[in-house]
Amino acid sequence: MAKKITNIAVLTSGGDAPGMNAAIRAVVRACSFYNIECTGVYRGYQGLIEADFIKLDARSVRNIINKGGTFLKSTRSLDFKTKEGRKIAYDNLKANNVDALIVIGGDGTFTGGQLFSQEFDIPLVGIPATIDNDINGTDYTLGYDTALNTVVEAIDKIRDTASSHNRLFLVEVMGRDAGDIALNSGIGAGAEEILIPEEDMGTERLLDSLKRSKKTGKTSSIIVVAEGEKSGKNIFELASYIEENMDEYEVRVSVLGHIQRGGSPSCFDRVLASKLGVGAVEALMNGKSGIMIGIHHQKVVHVDLVTAIKDDSKIDNELRRVADITSV
Amino acid sequence: MAKKITNIAVLTSGGDAPGMNAAIRAVVRACSFYNIECTGVYRGYQGLIEADFIKLDARSVRNIINKGGTFLKSTRSLDFKTKEGRKIAYDNLKANNVDALIVIGGDGTFTGGQLFSQEFDIPLVGIPATIDNDINGTDYTLGYDTALNTVVEAIDKIRDTASSHNRLFLVEVMGRDAGDIALNSGIGAGAEEILIPEEDMGTERLLDSLKRSKKTGKTSSIIVVAEGEKSGKNIFELASYIEENMDEYEVRVSVLGHIQRGGSPSCFDRVLASKLGVGAVEALMNGKSGIMIGIHHQKVVHVDLVTAIKDDSKIDNELRRVADITSV
Amino acid sequence: MAKKITNIAVLTSGGDAPGMNAAIRAVVRACSFYNIECTGVYRGYQGLIEADFIKLDARSVRNIINKGGTFLKSTRSLDFKTKEGRKIAYDNLKANNVDALIVIGGDGTFTGGQLFSQEFDIPLVGIPATIDNDINGTDYTLGYDTALNTVVEAIDKIRDTASSHNRLFLVEVMGRDAGDIALNSGIGAGAEEILIPEEDMGTERLLDSLKRSKKTGKTSSIIVVAEGEKSGKNIFELASYIEENMDEYEVRVSVLGHIQRGGSPSCFDRVLASKLGVGAVEALMNGKSGIMIGIHHQKVVHVDLVTAIKDDSKIDNELRRVADITSV
Amino acid sequence: MAKKITNIAVLTSGGDAPGMNAAIRAVVRACSFYNIECTGVYRGYQGLIEADFIKLDARSVRNIINKGGTFLKSTRSLDFKTKEGRKIAYDNLKANNVDALIVIGGDGTFTGGQLFSQEFDIPLVGIPATIDNDINGTDYTLGYDTALNTVVEAIDKIRDTASSHNRLFLVEVMGRDAGDIALNSGIGAGAEEILIPEEDMGTERLLDSLKRSKKTGKTSSIIVVAEGEKSGKNIFELASYIEENMDEYEVRVSVLGHIQRGGSPSCFDRVLASKLGVGAVEALMNGKSGIMIGIHHQKVVHVDLVTAIKDDSKIDNELRRVADITSV
Repeated sequence: MAKKITNIAVLTSGGDAPGMNAAIRAVVRACSFYNIECTGVYRGYQGLIEADFIKLDARSVRNIINKGGTFLKSTRSLDFKTKEGRKIAYDNLKANNVDALIVIGGDGTFTGGQLFSQEFDIPLVGIPATIDNDINGTDYTLGYDTALNTVVEAIDKIRDTASSHNRLFLVEVMGRDAGDIALNSGIGAGAEEILIPEEDMGTERLLDSLKRSKKTGKTSSIIVVAEGEKSGKNIFELASYIEENMDEYEVRVSVLGHIQRGGSPSCFDRVLASKLGVGAVEALMNGKSGIMIGIHHQKVVHVDLVTAIKDDSKIDNELRRVADITSV
Repeated sequence: MAKKITNIAVLTSGGDAPGMNAAIRAVVRACSFYNIECTGVYRGYQGLIEADFIKLDARSVRNIINKGGTFLKSTRSLDFKTKEGRKIAYDNLKANNVDALIVIGGDGTFTGGQLFSQEFDIPLVGIPATIDNDINGTDYTLGYDTALNTVVEAIDKIRDTASSHNRLFLVEVMGRDAGDIALNSGIGAGAEEILIPEEDMGTERLLDSLKRSKKTGKTSSIIVVAEGEKSGKNIFELASYIEENMDEYEVRVSVLGHIQRGGSPSCFDRVLASKLGVGAVEALMNGKSGIMIGIHHQKVVHVDLVTAIKDDSKIDNELRRVADITSV
Repeated sequence: MAKKITNIAVLTSGGDAPGMNAAIRAVVRACSFYNIECTGVYRGYQGLIEADFIKLDARSVRNIINKGGTFLKSTRSLDFKTKEGRKIAYDNLKANNVDALIVIGGDGTFTGGQLFSQEFDIPLVGIPATIDNDINGTDYTLGYDTALNTVVEAIDKIRDTASSHNRLFLVEVMGRDAGDIALNSGIGAGAEEILIPEEDMGTERLLDSLKRSKKTGKTSSIIVVAEGEKSGKNIFELASYIEENMDEYEVRVSVLGHIQRGGSPSCFDRVLASKLGVGAVEALMNGKSGIMIGIHHQKVVHVDLVTAIKDDSKIDNELRRVADITSV
Repeated sequence: MAKKITNIAVLTSGGDAPGMNAAIRAVVRACSFYNIECTGVYRGYQGLIEADFIKLDARSVRNIINKGGTFLKSTRSLDFKTKEGRKIAYDNLKANNVDALIVIGGDGTFTGGQLFSQEFDIPLVGIPATIDNDINGTDYTLGYDTALNTVVEAIDKIRDTASSHNRLFLVEVMGRDAGDIALNSGIGAGAEEILIPEEDMGTERLLDSLKRSKKTGKTSSIIVVAEGEKSGKNIFELASYIEENMDEYEVRVSVLGHIQRGGSPSCFDRVLASKLGVGAVEALMNGKSGIMIGIHHQKVVHVDLVTAIKDDSKIDNELRRVADITSV
């Protein structure tokens, strides 16, 4: 039988994502509900090593569900990549009577957590939080839905100018390896073309497509380009290429950048964070470890951390098809 | 074999919902993609009867994906409730060479559509659009996600005042029969209590709960109340009741009202509308009729209209549980 | 020569308004800049009496410029209305070496402050913060610009429904005595009629006007109604009256309520708060007392508190004229 | 006595700005109010030359007050820079019985308009619309207030990440020649430093300042950089320079770009647009020409176009001072 958990530490690590605060809140509240102590760790794994801890109770997390970022802060830790560093981290947890750990972050966070949990036999559960939605075994990661809304609102603004001036805009959105943000925000923003890392449409086919669009009467266009897009040109080169080959258009570039990571989380992300936070505490109480709490078909699921971080981003072909049809 | 569809009419009916324009756009674009003519019908079923039609092509629906409401407008039609009215509607469709119909709306819309389709043997497909999320067979209806964001943003504003003044706010949200909006927005807005139509917690238990909250150190509180809540008191009576029984609080009421129906759709609703609109056209092309296009487990599904409108709103017990835990 | 100020206390009182936190921040930062100690007072005048104080330094106010409400909280104080209460307040300030006071709020706040300052010879400066914009001697009060944006965004959402359904909406906005919010938001939201406390257009003239609008082809309408409007009917009675007299319209009511007080302040309010906060500290340093720091013609001005709270709300006739012309 | 005006043409030219649609609406409505015909010109001066006209009545401009961009579209016209081009433009106006012209835009628009009006003796009035606020004789240009809100909302999002990671962000905002956007949004967003075109603080002083900030306990920082800033380094070079000289910080760059031009106008801009649009029509009716309608001390004023376009952007020293004090 699983040892009774009496003190759970929680940290956020890696790039911040909207909903992290809501997830911390849910962890803290669930601990309070089940009479478990909760220890906040500042600055991710580095804070574990430096014993940068704070006691958290139900009232510590009031009025944070709607705040972007993470009040526990996040940082990269080189020390945690060493066995020595992890040993110190473990000793600090023990010294503070912490007997389980919840880590909120993306694949880097899970990789470190998985290793730590195995080496030191401390129960550990992960909560997926990254705007890139590139974790296996969960339909959604925290922050992804919010980022999509941020992107479409930004492109809505750009479209005001595009359609006022009959211009072509290339808009770069996040996504080094995964095209989920580009594909969904591209459909949502009514983009004419969407370039994603998972496929290389080729610059010539892009030109053909733009020319076809022009013929059907389109007077302005938005092309959404994922960071990791595979044309071999960066977005500014791509803009020049199009301008050289299509007299009809003035081309402009907008790189949305870091605004995509911040902002007050959407209701979807707040509810998701609440479910996952509660689920993480309950999983630890039930003796689980080495897993991520995900959401699949609207239900909380447990996924092996090893599975969660497996890299196999696949394009959603149905969504690609819908994008092609609705952009005629 | 199904007769080839050559001209699809599309209308919106019932209460408007964010995403209706995006759905119309997807229908029109899919028609264009498949070389099918598309006929817009103004003012719902009444427009069918008055032959208030407009030809729509791919360019007719530019720059509307981000607009709330419905540019085809919506109205109630008493005439369509009569056999004579429906006969005229049918004759108008025939006279305009329309051979299939897509109706976008909620259960009232589907009920009328189901009857019309059976009486006059015209292929008809429904797209669920209502902020109430009270349609069976689809995980989400159009407008629901947007409404949740509108509600949590409004309550975020109210919380500024609540926590500045140590007040208790009762916030009424939509939902005569279904507590989905209240439950999700309540969790998302960090509400202390959530009153929904599916259960009557009793005013005494509410008081007990508020007193417990107060003891745990809460200095302000938000109670989210669905319109159809079952305490037997209206929201103003409820406020008086609490004020009389809890000296500690000044109680205020806010009825969110019609702002919940409007606004630019969220990315989620725009993508959903795009999938459902394309799915509706393709279903008609494949000879389907009398069905709703829904989304289940992130895939487009076909649901009998009769099933879709069956009234059996069930509370999501898991969500109720998460609400209780995260509000400690 | 004025005695050198060494410790300034700051409090917020009355209804909260967006920008209060930004004003506190500016006061604290200006104190830090000039090497003056700063003492935060929780819960307004009541906190003075209860000595509910906190030392504030430049870092205490990080990341609050964009937050609605007031982190120092606000409450009504019956005790402060008594001479005994004010004496205790004064003693508490002296005991904490506070030698000047900045009060952020509206006319009630200023009335109390004016009395207190005279009775106890403590330098006191006011910063006008109320969404109602009903303070004399300043072109703008803190929170007013933000409230206008909140109102027009809400009415934009309602208009989605109004124009989808060809409906008439009555929207109630704040303003018991002053029509500024109604008049400006009414113009900004494109309202057809605007009812304000400063004039009674009469219900018959309202009907005439609506009928004229209908004739010119308007199919939906928004009427913005200030709380303190003088028709003699409340907004629900007004709706019934219109519905009875105009068959053509379905009439709906929306009371915007408390959302108008909250929310992240606009850039305008943040900059205004920064100017006023700095101005208040500098005024005290220059030996001023019994004044409000206002903004007039984009410059910081000093206004006697007695003048500031004088009640003489006047309608802006030019704006009224613009409203009439742009709503044809 | 001035000849009676019977038909006013209106166009938008130059970069688009939020509030242009609201200004067009006000012009059209004022024409309708005064029984003057109104002719919309598509695509600015180029549309004059191509006689790309449309009759506008009061109902043509419904539901556009809240839309960004300009439905009349805007484009650059090389043809209008030639005398021949302007002659054709004039002939087109005469052929359509237009006897006065309202041009909405910035200094380029006014320069062209001034020349045209003098050459061809056609009454012409300008309305200042540009997010840069770089027109003389008016306290505000259309779009400026909205752009400030867009910028602070974007930086609020970036701050979530900055403070979660203890990072330094350089955020580039618009303003080639004028620092108004940078200075106001910098104060509004709580920036630690603000670099503007009107002064070169020097990269060493910047470093000194950042080091001082760090010492006072700041753990993250935002530097707002106007496009036309004078350090001699572009923003990416500036980031590298800081990173090389301050080990303590990871530096990130965000270029806000075109999102600043779009979006639904703020209430302030909608009201301003309404005043200016009405003022423009009334000025023409009163025989005025060669002027811009501006706003000064909250009143509509007439400014010679020659004065309006005079280049003498001056830094607001008081605002600079407030920025320095509130960023300690």
